Amino acid sequence: DLETLRQMRGKWPVLWVNVDGVGHPGTVQALGDIFALHRLGLEDVTDVPQRAKVAAYGDHLLIVARMARLIPELDLEQIGIFVGRDYVLTFQERPGDPLDPVRARIRAGHPRIRGSGPDYLAYAVIDAIVDHYFPVLESYADRLDALEEEIVGRPSRRSMNRLHHAKRELMSLRRAIWPLRDALAALVREPGELVTQPTLVYLRDCQEHAVQIVDLVETYRDLGSSLTDLYLSSVSHRMNEIMKVLTIFASIFIPLGFVTGIYGMNLVHPPVAWYWRWGFAFGVMGVVALGLLAFFWRQGWLGREK
Amino acid sequence: DLETLRQMRGKWPVLWVNVDGVGHPGTVQALGDIFALHRLGLEDVTDVPQRAKVAAYGDHLLIVARMARLIPELDLEQIGIFVGRDYVLTFQERPGDPLDPVRARIRAGHPRIRGSGPDYLAYAVIDAIVDHYFPVLESYADRLDALEEEIVGRPSRRSMNRLHHAKRELMSLRRAIWPLRDALAALVREPGELVTQPTLVYLRDCQEHAVQIVDLVETYRDLGSSLTDLYLSSVSHRMNEIMKVLTIFASIFIPLGFVTGIYGMNLVHPPVAWYWRWGFAFGVMGVVALGLLAFFWRQGWLGREK
Amino acid sequence: DLETLRQMRGKWPVLWVNVDGVGHPGTVQALGDIFALHRLGLEDVTDVPQRAKVAAYGDHLLIVARMARLIPELDLEQIGIFVGRDYVLTFQERPGDPLDPVRARIRAGHPRIRGSGPDYLAYAVIDAIVDHYFPVLESYADRLDALEEEIVGRPSRRSMNRLHHAKRELMSLRRAIWPLRDALAALVREPGELVTQPTLVYLRDCQEHAVQIVDLVETYRDLGSSLTDLYLSSVSHRMNEIMKVLTIFASIFIPLGFVTGIYGMNLVHPPVAWYWRWGFAFGVMGVVALGLLAFFWRQGWLGREK
Amino acid sequence: DLETLRQMRGKWPVLWVNVDGVGHPGTVQALGDIFALHRLGLEDVTDVPQRAKVAAYGDHLLIVARMARLIPELDLEQIGIFVGRDYVLTFQERPGDPLDPVRARIRAGHPRIRGSGPDYLAYAVIDAIVDHYFPVLESYADRLDALEEEIVGRPSRRSMNRLHHAKRELMSLRRAIWPLRDALAALVREPGELVTQPTLVYLRDCQEHAVQIVDLVETYRDLGSSLTDLYLSSVSHRMNEIMKVLTIFASIFIPLGFVTGIYGMNLVHPPVAWYWRWGFAFGVMGVVALGLLAFFWRQGWLGREK
Amino acid sequence: DLETLRQMRGKWPVLWVNVDGVGHPGTVQALGDIFALHRLGLEDVTDVPQRAKVAAYGDHLLIVARMARLIPELDLEQIGIFVGRDYVLTFQERPGDPLDPVRARIRAGHPRIRGSGPDYLAYAVIDAIVDHYFPVLESYADRLDALEEEIVGRPSRRSMNRLHHAKRELMSLRRAIWPLRDALAALVREPGELVTQPTLVYLRDCQEHAVQIVDLVETYRDLGSSLTDLYLSSVSHRMNEIMKVLTIFASIFIPLGFVTGIYGMNLVHPPVAWYWRWGFAFGVMGVVALGLLAFFWRQGWLGREK
Repeated sequence: DLETLRQMRGKWPVLWVNVDGVGHPGTVQALGDIFALHRLGLEDVTDVPQRAKVAAYGDHLLIVARMARLIPELDLEQIGIFVGRDYVLTFQERPGDPLDPVRARIRAGHPRIRGSGPDYLAYAVIDAIVDHYFPVLESYADRLDALEEEIVGRPSRRSMNRLHHAKRELMSLRRAIWPLRDALAALVREPGELVTQPTLVYLRDCQEHAVQIVDLVETYRDLGSSLTDLYLSSVSHRMNEIMKVLTIFASIFIPLGFVTGIYGMNLVHPPVAWYWRWGFAFGVMGVVALGLLAFFWRQGWLGREK
Repeated sequence: DLETLRQMRGKWPVLWVNVDGVGHPGTVQALGDIFALHRLGLEDVTDVPQRAKVAAYGDHLLIVARMARLIPELDLEQIGIFVGRDYVLTFQERPGDPLDPVRARIRAGHPRIRGSGPDYLAYAVIDAIVDHYFPVLESYADRLDALEEEIVGRPSRRSMNRLHHAKRELMSLRRAIWPLRDALAALVREPGELVTQPTLVYLRDCQEHAVQIVDLVETYRDLGSSLTDLYLSSVSHRMNEIMKVLTIFASIFIPLGFVTGIYGMNLVHPPVAWYWRWGFAFGVMGVVALGLLAFFWRQGWLGREK
Repeated sequence: DLETLRQMRGKWPVLWVNVDGVGHPGTVQALGDIFALHRLGLEDVTDVPQRAKVAAYGDHLLIVARMARLIPELDLEQIGIFVGRDYVLTFQERPGDPLDPVRARIRAGHPRIRGSGPDYLAYAVIDAIVDHYFPVLESYADRLDALEEEIVGRPSRRSMNRLHHAKRELMSLRRAIWPLRDALAALVREPGELVTQPTLVYLRDCQEHAVQIVDLVETYRDLGSSLTDLYLSSVSHRMNEIMKVLTIFASIFIPLGFVTGIYGMNLVHPPVAWYWRWGFAFGVMGVVALGLLAFFWRQGWLGREK
Repeated sequence: DLETLRQMRGKWPVLWVNVDGVGHPGTVQALGDIFALHRLGLEDVTDVPQRAKVAAYGDHLLIVARMARLIPELDLEQIGIFVGRDYVLTFQERPGDPLDPVRARIRAGHPRIRGSGPDYLAYAVIDAIVDHYFPVLESYADRLDALEEEIVGRPSRRSMNRLHHAKRELMSLRRAIWPLRDALAALVREPGELVTQPTLVYLRDCQEHAVQIVDLVETYRDLGSSLTDLYLSSVSHRMNEIMKVLTIFASIFIPLGFVTGIYGMNLVHPPVAWYWRWGFAFGVMGVVALGLLAFFWRQGWLGREK
Repeated sequence: DLETLRQMRGKWPVLWVNVDGVGHPGTVQALGDIFALHRLGLEDVTDVPQRAKVAAYGDHLLIVARMARLIPELDLEQIGIFVGRDYVLTFQERPGDPLDPVRARIRAGHPRIRGSGPDYLAYAVIDAIVDHYFPVLESYADRLDALEEEIVGRPSRRSMNRLHHAKRELMSLRRAIWPLRDALAALVREPGELVTQPTLVYLRDCQEHAVQIVDLVETYRDLGSSLTDLYLSSVSHRMNEIMKVLTIFASIFIPLGFVTGIYGMNLVHPPVAWYWRWGFAFGVMGVVALGLLAFFWRQGWLGREK
């Protein structure tokens, strides 16, 4: 509770307070009072969604980012991180997993986190958030691979809907990671006095990971476009196949039907022995049918296209 | 009226004059004389439409922006804001709502607006304008979601017309917010002496919101493109479905009709008992029909595709 | 004539010489000698077409721009403007209207043009050229609106040809205004000593108009792309409508024809009273037809799609 | 030969050596020794293809560019130009025409080339190369105009193949001129001490021409995309026309055939006088045919679409 | 082994250690201890895949790049290169060929590699990696040429799948070379003290090759898009051809069948001599058939389109 927190301040070199659920304005306000946080920063943390950013408010930094999770739909939860001289405050919308590895490392007595200042702890949190994008992106890579196989093999309307869904989620991912990349680049360029030199090297590494994620998202978007082309060409191709079947059947049997129609006309027929006339009739039909088959064969319509 | 205004100047720390309707050049000119506004700035305010911009004219700033409203079509009204040492002048085309929250806060005695200079009041106005884009964009998000559901479920020509309409309005929104973002960024970078340091922090926050709006507009445009692809693939897919029905019917019944035609030929038939020949005829037809059905089944054309 | 010109030089604070038709090299050369113009500048003026640009040659500036007119096809005439300490020379390909408002204002004794130096006169000319793009662009907006109505209502092949034509002319407009925008931006950034401070404010205004024109051209290009998508989807949609009609007719009447064919077979029929058999035959046909109509109804093919 | 060359060095203010065919490494190496050229520069000249660039190696510059020719396919030959204090060396792959105008002007005793240093001669060579892009681009403009006329009038598969071919060559042109533009811009920005001030003005002019060529190439690429859209819409449109013919024929005659089939059924007919029944039969057929024609007329399928 | 390595350090001016397989963390860690490598650098080398980059860690540089190979699928193996004052460490995933030419040159006693420092050796390695992209890209050029020929001649569904495959691999190549280009540009801009001036000239050359590769990849991507358009237009065109055949057959024979149907109606026929009636019937059919053939001829559907 808040009173204990107030007393603990100053007794530890680094204090990490994690707030789950930002819907309780009173608590947030009280924390803002205890740590003397800027009003605009507090608003940014409680008003979701925000764009990822790094803002410097005199003696403390605010880093806003979005954490990517698949549960199983894409979920982009906002996290706000205040970094001061002796504290790190994190505000999450819901209690959740991306920060669990950091907690586990602290509990396990990870020497570097324990021995470093709040800037390194904040780096560890951001690094956990950024690295959590990779498994999410991998699942999109798998999904696109599966879609590609489906579209190459047996394209259905559902494939296209799923492709659109994936493209849509990639747009959201892009909107989440792109500003984070820029914010981290700005932080690395002008770290201010709260970020120490050793941590800066780690932050630069983290920013490179964000760049890599942006690259991957862009590649997957390109891949999605190429799959759309592939789908449209597949559908057109199948239309061709269907039309060929129709054309072959109709073009062979409609003329044959015409021949039978001629013999069905109620006209006085010339007196010819029946066997010869049957033979002639079937001969004509056979010639017509074989001629058309030969025509379609030369067009290359009869073999199944590879 | 103008005489009262002239007398009031200088008696209050900040004077806010809001002019609705810029079609009355006399009033605008008189105001320009009272507050010594630059001729080009006055022209910018009366000549609509202008591109959003921030222009510094010695002792006063001019900020031109566009307010987005849905009534229920998208309406992008221009607003011109002159900021001087002791006054804020706003020129609107029509009396309207985006500024109402600001007025309400002043009437309610909002301490920060009351206690700050004209730069903070101008910020409050711009912030109200920028934040009014969010509900407008949300309505587009809803519209695109509804269109997506429609296109996935039952795409019609009307869906495409409405999609085009939404894309067109998003282009207008983009053209309104993009220069505002740049103008605010320029103002934040070189605030001049009229903008005080505390207000600058707020302006930066406001500029970040403009960036976020640009991001959203771009995402919705991408989404619109993806929906166009989805629509086109849906239409192609339905064409395939239609053609399959035609091909199945025609390919089965045209050969069967040919068989009946053979039996309808006016030739002397071989003397065979009728029951056997009926059986043979229907047998041939049955074999043809079942063979073709098997062929279509193997092609996967008979089951309704998911 | 040239002799009078030579004598008039120096007697007036600002001398404006407008040359219509740059095909007379002798005159151009003579003018170059009188005003000591740089050889490369003269070449730029006589060699059309050039890219819009601003070039500084010591004591005089050369501004090359393109004037947009609709007569009624898009016409992009080149204009070269030399600005010196006491003269402005304009070289047009053909005598024409965009500069007429400037002349009218001079004749009407416009105080600011009369009282200012050659830089303001040059600004007035450039401003007239830039502002003349707006009515041209408005006509494209009207054309695209008309095309949109046509494509939504009754798309024809001619619509697409006209859309392509509009897109093509927008490409030309873009190629004309884009470098002018950059050239004006460069001039505003580094005005040199020929441009006075008061004129610079006007030039900046003019450059903003150029930016606004570029924005509009880009928006119209985007609109053109969206209209292309709309057209293609309309054509596909109409194809679906046509195919549905064919499929409904063929799928209903080909099976019915098959039934009549069965009854037309020259086989000894079982001895049943004729009225029953007529009833049975029409009953079968009715069931087939109603069944297929029900099937097409469930597919939603019978109602006219909105 | 090389010995004469060695002796001539130093005797003339500017020495221009043009090497045709860079496949003779011995000659190139010997020239490199005579003029003390940098090893990397020589490699750049002999290893084709290279990207256009300007490289400064202490006391000499290397300019690599590509010359565009149509013979009649697009040919992009590489040229390497070494510029030193008293020499210009040009390495071409094949003897060829773009440099002929320069040679002609030297032989004709062109005063500026004769009187200036090697930098002006190098400029003259580069200017000839850059200006030679214009006729090449003009031929593409003509080709695209012809394709446009073809696609608007009578689109065939060959049009599309030729369009693809043109787009492909425009990509090559773009890849040749884009880096040259950047290299010239870099040279103009940091000319080094080998380029004199008067030549710099000419080089800037030349660089503007390169920018203009890039603009043109981009416009033609856009035009190619628009033509692709136009082609695809034309093909779809023709498909609609074909399908309309099929649908009209099939929808009218298949129901009529069904009516004749009914009258062909081998059932005992009711005893009605023959003339009445013929009239009734043709009446039914006429009503069906006219009804369908009216339906297609209302659909607007019968008139040839503009 | 590691002990020998430790002893050899310092005895040679440049020591090149190549580690194949980065899956053995112990060896990597031991090497890191011997050469005092930064922890983050070692992580970058062992955690694959990384984005290409250049990182400076005090007294040593880390260069991460990806080597392109076709075996026969595209393989992008990561390589990490540590450059210190007297050593070069290279970490490969698998033993492989791109570095073999460097080894061969060292064994052959190449004077420049032998006589220069570790920076030149590192350059030689990077140069071998970059230049190995060229044959890979050439194979894509060949593949796209083959696809183009196929699509122009006889487009099949397999062509489209292979085109998609090539586009996908080009995306991977782009993602590999783009950051390498940027990293090399950053290294050339700020080489630090480990890179000597003579090597810098070589590195700049190498960076230009990377730029050229990026250009090529982009051109091939554009080419891929153009081929997609070509394929789609080809498929649409073939659909037109198929539909024309169907339409011609159906439109000619269905009316003819209707004529035979009329004569097959079981109505009492007017008593006319049989020969005249046969002639009339075939006359009507002939007129119908020739009229339709003339119609299709005028439509241009009968000749095979070029």
